[in-house]
Amino acid sequence: MKGIKVVLLAVFVACAAVFPLGAQEAPRALPVPETVSPELAHLIAAGPFAQWNTHPTTAAEWKAWAASLAEAASRELPALRERLGVDMEQGDIGGVPVFIFPPKDLPEANRDRILLNLHGGGYVLGQGESGTAEAIMMAGIGKFRVVYADYRLAPDFPYPAAIDDAVSVYRGLLETTPAERIGVFGTSTGGAMTLILTLRARAEGLPLPAAIAPGTPWTDLTKTGDSYFVNEGVDNVLISYDGWLSEAARVYAGGHDLKDPMLSPVYGDVSNFPPTLLTSGTRDLFLSNTVRMHLKLRQAGVPADLIVFEGLSHAQYHMALMPEATFHFTELGRFFGRNLR
Amino acid sequence: MKGIKVVLLAVFVACAAVFPLGAQEAPRALPVPETVSPELAHLIAAGPFAQWNTHPTTAAEWKAWAASLAEAASRELPALRERLGVDMEQGDIGGVPVFIFPPKDLPEANRDRILLNLHGGGYVLGQGESGTAEAIMMAGIGKFRVVYADYRLAPDFPYPAAIDDAVSVYRGLLETTPAERIGVFGTSTGGAMTLILTLRARAEGLPLPAAIAPGTPWTDLTKTGDSYFVNEGVDNVLISYDGWLSEAARVYAGGHDLKDPMLSPVYGDVSNFPPTLLTSGTRDLFLSNTVRMHLKLRQAGVPADLIVFEGLSHAQYHMALMPEATFHFTELGRFFGRNLR
Repeated sequence: MKGIKVVLLAVFVACAAVFPLGAQEAPRALPVPETVSPELAHLIAAGPFAQWNTHPTTAAEWKAWAASLAEAASRELPALRERLGVDMEQGDIGGVPVFIFPPKDLPEANRDRILLNLHGGGYVLGQGESGTAEAIMMAGIGKFRVVYADYRLAPDFPYPAAIDDAVSVYRGLLETTPAERIGVFGTSTGGAMTLILTLRARAEGLPLPAAIAPGTPWTDLTKTGDSYFVNEGVDNVLISYDGWLSEAARVYAGGHDLKDPMLSPVYGDVSNFPPTLLTSGTRDLFLSNTVRMHLKLRQAGVPADLIVFEGLSHAQYHMALMPEATFHFTELGRFFGRNLR
Repeated sequence: MKGIKVVLLAVFVACAAVFPLGAQEAPRALPVPETVSPELAHLIAAGPFAQWNTHPTTAAEWKAWAASLAEAASRELPALRERLGVDMEQGDIGGVPVFIFPPKDLPEANRDRILLNLHGGGYVLGQGESGTAEAIMMAGIGKFRVVYADYRLAPDFPYPAAIDDAVSVYRGLLETTPAERIGVFGTSTGGAMTLILTLRARAEGLPLPAAIAPGTPWTDLTKTGDSYFVNEGVDNVLISYDGWLSEAARVYAGGHDLKDPMLSPVYGDVSNFPPTLLTSGTRDLFLSNTVRMHLKLRQAGVPADLIVFEGLSHAQYHMALMPEATFHFTELGRFFGRNLR
């Protein structure tokens, strides 16, 4: 891997580089797949995210941890925007702060289309600008104008604050743009919120977005799903449900039933959902979260597509500029291009 | 699981029931997923296929082993045909013996359409009628007339005998049915042959089938692919590449380069392939064989769909009559219904 310059973007990887490795459970010894890009091979070989087993016990501890991760993640963002030719504007929509990412070379066909991005981070991470790498990559590679919702986070703002904010932004967008020209996407928690927003839109009588792309969505906040077990210690981003992730589920839910579809959308009624594209990886701790949702959508007759990347752990498709990222955001661009008016 | 009557169909499971478990490597201890059907949960809980680590050393040993598995697998087939309302005819097409499975209630729309089925079994198993469970289920559940090619097997007939026979049947079908009305599908080795047949058809100037559905295809005969490692000891059908599977690759290839696209189609040029539907499972040893092929097809611009079943090991979707099987063959029926003229 020597000599390969990898641009690392996401909070987890940035921090794996910053902090010494110290996972309490060693991951299984597995060879790095031969056929992935050198950049992805580098991410796979980097070992586990050192802080996966963090267990904050107070709001202050959560916020200190989230702030340290946000700072590390934010450092690379100006260079990423520059490299991908993406501008950034700040504002608010529906009373919620947003970042807007217009690509400098927005295609004519996408001029009146908007994508809403909901970031990941377990409802506790990704504050402010720090979670915008995915939005920037979608704008720069997929060539859409992307609106990024800086929704409120737990533990200060537990359920339903985050999804309320996402719905408020969606309502705000509908004032200027018809739903047939709006797509929604996000990764991990943002993937789950993409699905929950669609459930909420239907429940509230709003028109549904024209298409949605939940990437490796956290569709089940309980430890239900085969890959929570099979890929435990295999996924080098999340490593295990039993680390910070289970704590995040708890503090966000704030006592609500974790299997409520508004928290775990795999238990929701997805009939008449719009075309959906899901993404995961063979090492993803959320592979089952993804494929269970995919099967449920297909069983409901929804046109739902699935892409699973070779060797990829959770959400790594937006953690570096690499061929897999280019492929992912190009596919999303094609998908939204086909399905938005 | 008590009280559940599971109809076990495929060679591996049938034999796991016949022989005491005796795998040399214990599988990883993993809970049975909670959300799969009771029948699939039963297959998952049944433990590893006892004979995965068989290493025949002579043609006679191969044939004795294949015959014993074929006998066990064949026993359930008449009841399966009866239950699914499927007839069986024997004949030959293009000089190759075939079994033909017309459903008793063939829909009018499918009257002039044909599906060619290529069975699995590592190019060494599935002789005669013994590999027909998948063809019967496709006919009975998916409601198509299915032609099953009883192609020649290794070690007596190494590469390219099997694929030559498959191509001969395809050529024979073209004499009465236009390619736009022909689909090809198969599982495991049969999934790989489905892809290789398409490569061969193009190379020989034949029209390509209208659509293909390779299920968990053996697209790489070498031990290349992340799930060969991650799902080793997790998949309870194949368990490991290093058992009978690697021996089968060797005796079929007969000295040819295992990475030749005619043996490992993931290395082939798939541009202009017809619409393709691939299937795998989260525990499948061939998950990477499947997703690597899927990504390659999408990169070539082929409309390629992927379904990954929760908790499923290799090819289990055709190993019992269960909701996952109904879903699989219904999806295949819809897929071919959409894509065949």
